Amino acid sequence: MKISGRNRLKGEVKEVVLGDVMAKVVLQVGDNRITSVITREAAEEMEIKEGKEITALIKATEVMLTEE
Amino acid sequence: MKISGRNRLKGEVKEVVLGDVMAKVVLQVGDNRITSVITREAAEEMEIKEGKEITALIKATEVMLTEE
Amino acid sequence: MKISGRNRLKGEVKEVVLGDVMAKVVLQVGDNRITSVITREAAEEMEIKEGKEITALIKATEVMLTEE
Amino acid sequence: MKISGRNRLKGEVKEVVLGDVMAKVVLQVGDNRITSVITREAAEEMEIKEGKEITALIKATEVMLTEE
Amino acid sequence: MKISGRNRLKGEVKEVVLGDVMAKVVLQVGDNRITSVITREAAEEMEIKEGKEITALIKATEVMLTEE
Amino acid sequence: MKISGRNRLKGEVKEVVLGDVMAKVVLQVGDNRITSVITREAAEEMEIKEGKEITALIKATEVMLTEE
Repeated sequence: MKISGRNRLKGEVKEVVLGDVMAKVVLQVGDNRITSVITREAAEEMEIKEGKEITALIKATEVMLTEE
Repeated sequence: MKISGRNRLKGEVKEVVLGDVMAKVVLQVGDNRITSVITREAAEEMEIKEGKEITALIKATEVMLTEE
Repeated sequence: MKISGRNRLKGEVKEVVLGDVMAKVVLQVGDNRITSVITREAAEEMEIKEGKEITALIKATEVMLTEE
Repeated sequence: MKISGRNRLKGEVKEVVLGDVMAKVVLQVGDNRITSVITREAAEEMEIKEGKEITALIKATEVMLTEE
Repeated sequence: MKISGRNRLKGEVKEVVLGDVMAKVVLQVGDNRITSVITREAAEEMEIKEGKEITALIKATEVMLTEE
Repeated sequence: MKISGRNRLKGEVKEVVLGDVMAKVVLQVGDNRITSVITREAAEEMEIKEGKEITALIKATEVMLTEE
């Protein structure tokens, strides 16, 4: 499937925290940890849990750059 | 420096395209390519060019998840 | 394909403006016009042109509400 | 009132979930459902409830495009 | 007009750069400079030019925090 | 430290609300109040509390403009 979003990072779910409206999902992507905040509804619908393989999708306009 | 942004991905600049207002910067981060769109002003101020080490900074609320 | 993004709006491309780095794409979705700004690279890779059927994808955290 | 945000979708509130910090609001806009996540404070201040007419406001840079 | 966006900063336009698709607008807000990138179409429709009074509108989920 | 994000607003924390996943932080910046929503994890890690000096960081592409 083609998508305009330039950044797709495959990873494995390491942590899920379900809140009342939002959910936090942490992925391992290579040597990096990626944290995503989505709706709880989406997390449940996608049956996100530890060990699941999933892809982070990020629009290029959302990526800042920093020296550090 | 502490920052609320959860995602910091260190990489090396592979491509820079300077437009009239915006600039596209592509990084190599581990096995992934990360594309960022920032202002041309920021790209010039930070002297971003191929080979430079730089960090992508992404707010957790900007990260979608997708099966695929 | 399951995706966390809550908003998927099917439409037809009505206008494309290719800039140096970014591209503007206007869709007709029911009675509404939806404007998207993506990278020129994405617009070319997806071969976006007038008449093409395409889906706008929007994260719920990006949607403001206004009385008007 | 003029606003730079290109996308304004009028709809009717179908569901509200108030969380501790955030709130989820679902609108019916034509044949589509639009989900918005705003602060609980904003939802209370705007007295958002089922049946209310309201407008979703989305910046063009926040709209991805996908084939599907 | 009520709006869910929590941050409205009144200022005066100090600089406008019109690009092919996007436009950069710099405001003076108290002691701070605020830079906004919107579509060129919006900048033209709103007749944004130096000296104009205008309000920056920012969703709370878009604001990072940093020590420094 | 150089950063591509064009908007850095120094302020003082006036209110913190810790939710299950997200946290709301309100700053005083000159005559304006700025509201930020970040992860609870970030708020705890940064030890954000009333009176702390902190900087809001906002990407230019996230700033809408409105007449009002």
